[in-house]
Amino acid sequence: NHKLKLFTLNANEPLAKEVADVIGRPLGECSVKRFSDGEVQINIEESIRGCDVFVIQSTSYPVNDNLMELLIMIDALRRASARTINVVMPYYGYARQDRKARSREPITAKLVANLLEKAGADRVIAMDLHAPQIQGFFDIPIDHLVAVPLLSDYFKNQGFKGDDIVIVSPDHGGVTRARKMADRLKAPIAIIDKRRPRPNVSEVMNIVGHVDGKIAILIDDIIDTAGTITAGANAIIESGAKEVYACCTHPVLSGPAIQRINDSQIKELVITNTIELPEDKNSPKIKQLSVAKLIGDAIVRVFEEKSVSTLFD
Amino acid sequence: NHKLKLFTLNANEPLAKEVADVIGRPLGECSVKRFSDGEVQINIEESIRGCDVFVIQSTSYPVNDNLMELLIMIDALRRASARTINVVMPYYGYARQDRKARSREPITAKLVANLLEKAGADRVIAMDLHAPQIQGFFDIPIDHLVAVPLLSDYFKNQGFKGDDIVIVSPDHGGVTRARKMADRLKAPIAIIDKRRPRPNVSEVMNIVGHVDGKIAILIDDIIDTAGTITAGANAIIESGAKEVYACCTHPVLSGPAIQRINDSQIKELVITNTIELPEDKNSPKIKQLSVAKLIGDAIVRVFEEKSVSTLFD
Ligand SMILES: Nc1ncnc2c1ncn2[C@@H]1O[C@H](COP(=O)(O)O)[C@@H](O)[C@H]1O
Ligand SMILES: Nc1ncnc2c1ncn2[C@@H]1O[C@H](COP(=O)(O)O)[C@@H](O)[C@H]1O
Repeated sequence: NHKLKLFTLNANEPLAKEVADVIGRPLGECSVKRFSDGEVQINIEESIRGCDVFVIQSTSYPVNDNLMELLIMIDALRRASARTINVVMPYYGYARQDRKARSREPITAKLVANLLEKAGADRVIAMDLHAPQIQGFFDIPIDHLVAVPLLSDYFKNQGFKGDDIVIVSPDHGGVTRARKMADRLKAPIAIIDKRRPRPNVSEVMNIVGHVDGKIAILIDDIIDTAGTITAGANAIIESGAKEVYACCTHPVLSGPAIQRINDSQIKELVITNTIELPEDKNSPKIKQLSVAKLIGDAIVRVFEEKSVSTLFD
Repeated sequence: NHKLKLFTLNANEPLAKEVADVIGRPLGECSVKRFSDGEVQINIEESIRGCDVFVIQSTSYPVNDNLMELLIMIDALRRASARTINVVMPYYGYARQDRKARSREPITAKLVANLLEKAGADRVIAMDLHAPQIQGFFDIPIDHLVAVPLLSDYFKNQGFKGDDIVIVSPDHGGVTRARKMADRLKAPIAIIDKRRPRPNVSEVMNIVGHVDGKIAILIDDIIDTAGTITAGANAIIESGAKEVYACCTHPVLSGPAIQRINDSQIKELVITNTIELPEDKNSPKIKQLSVAKLIGDAIVRVFEEKSVSTLFD
């Protein structure tokens, strides 16, 4: 009897529109603008009283503006008597600041979780969090979607599978993800093993596993400046791989990323649309897949109070 | 026995340096930068364990970046075992969104208070909050400094006082502030009384009180686009005032503000440095007074656990 309402803020409107199509409902009317001095001005332009509201917002660049839009929207929804406020964050910014790597650092990923809860979020739907432990930063329910099936299916449909290919993790932290993709493609894995022999001596890249004569697919969660992934790709080719592909969920692609990808040995980079790609960040090497179906299905299942995890098992 | 430490973030370093001089202590070592993707990176570079820490940050333009720097700094200080975290906000952004003027609006000034508390602030020192009620948005102690004495003394020292002058409030909301300044200058007050006779008919400006033949001083808390203050100044001159001056605490000065001030009848605009004035926002008409002494004294009194209100009684 209560109603589902879907809203988008400014970070990723094209994805939100696709999600609205998937679930067959219009986006809610809402004005999200700036005052002359840069302060965020939000006005929700339809009643949401008693509704289950879903707000789609990636906290991608400009991260602080996008996060404040989200917090202010949650505040407005709460004061307008939403029944539940469900925050859909295809990309969760500040996820890499998830621990104190040095003394006297913040743990901003936890701060963001606290801010979302304090503002009034009842539930979060996120995708490929940089560390799955970030789920534990929340006291409210969080659904964690993963893009591995989507990325794997893309390669499978091109005929990539079995022992002719190898799934490569660009670092030690990503081995579990590579293993999951390898399972789907019935392929072996390899790991790029970086180490610094002594302080102030440049890193040595070593490949654990066999890439010789194979088609290698690098997989990561985030590609930011693309330093790691392009250096990895070049090392893989030097080790005798026939071709190298790369894929990731979140195309942050800041600074020199596009130039590095264009200049690298990577044949194709497969990404998703959790982050909208601005015009100037396109490249003929990039193929973007949509997570709209995955997110739309998750929203409907949450609304219908069904388990979301079945979506990618 | 515990120690006072003073830090600044990026919003207003020149003011923070002046405050450090006033209290005779150096600014703490702290790196506040951006990662390649725009995320705030903070590292506190000296021990603050067991210290009473004061962080100076105005949430002026770019407000979302400055607010996030502040929240992340508070998180880092808390995790680094500060004894108390005292947030000094010479300018409190989002203060004008302090009530629901329409249905389904946020109350962002309250949201910001909640976020500061959730991050871990123990106390706030603010100046001329747009509405004094914002003090009640906090559950932690808040000290509220006012710039009226500073602004009044400036005019008094130029010989402005008594019945030759008149203190003018640019709207109904500012009458209390005008009255306080008038008391200090032993001057009468006047009010610019705007009303819209019918919807979609332009506003009529009427002056309640006598300005004829006098030197008028307009006073406001914030001057943002300067539309109100310059229209008011022109109306005052049309009503026969000899000269018109204007003053405010917070020089937001966005959009057409500087052009409007330069083109207006305002002879001099006196502001404070709660917000740093960028190069391109200067004007020969602007005189900037420093609040460093006021803030420095407040910090020392808070640290020594003495009352702050005596500073401006
Ligand atoms: N936005 C960012 N860009 C680059 N590095 C970051 C960012 N946020 C956090 N970090 C750093 O990245 C490290 C964590 O990355 P990882 O080892 O891949 O989990 C930490 O040492 C952080 O200081
Ligand atoms: N940054 C801003 N710039 C201009 N107007 C604002 C801003 N923030 C809030 N407001 C609006 O200003 C009104 C409050 O201003 P006031 O009547 O002066 O207290 C409210 O209706 C707000 O919607």
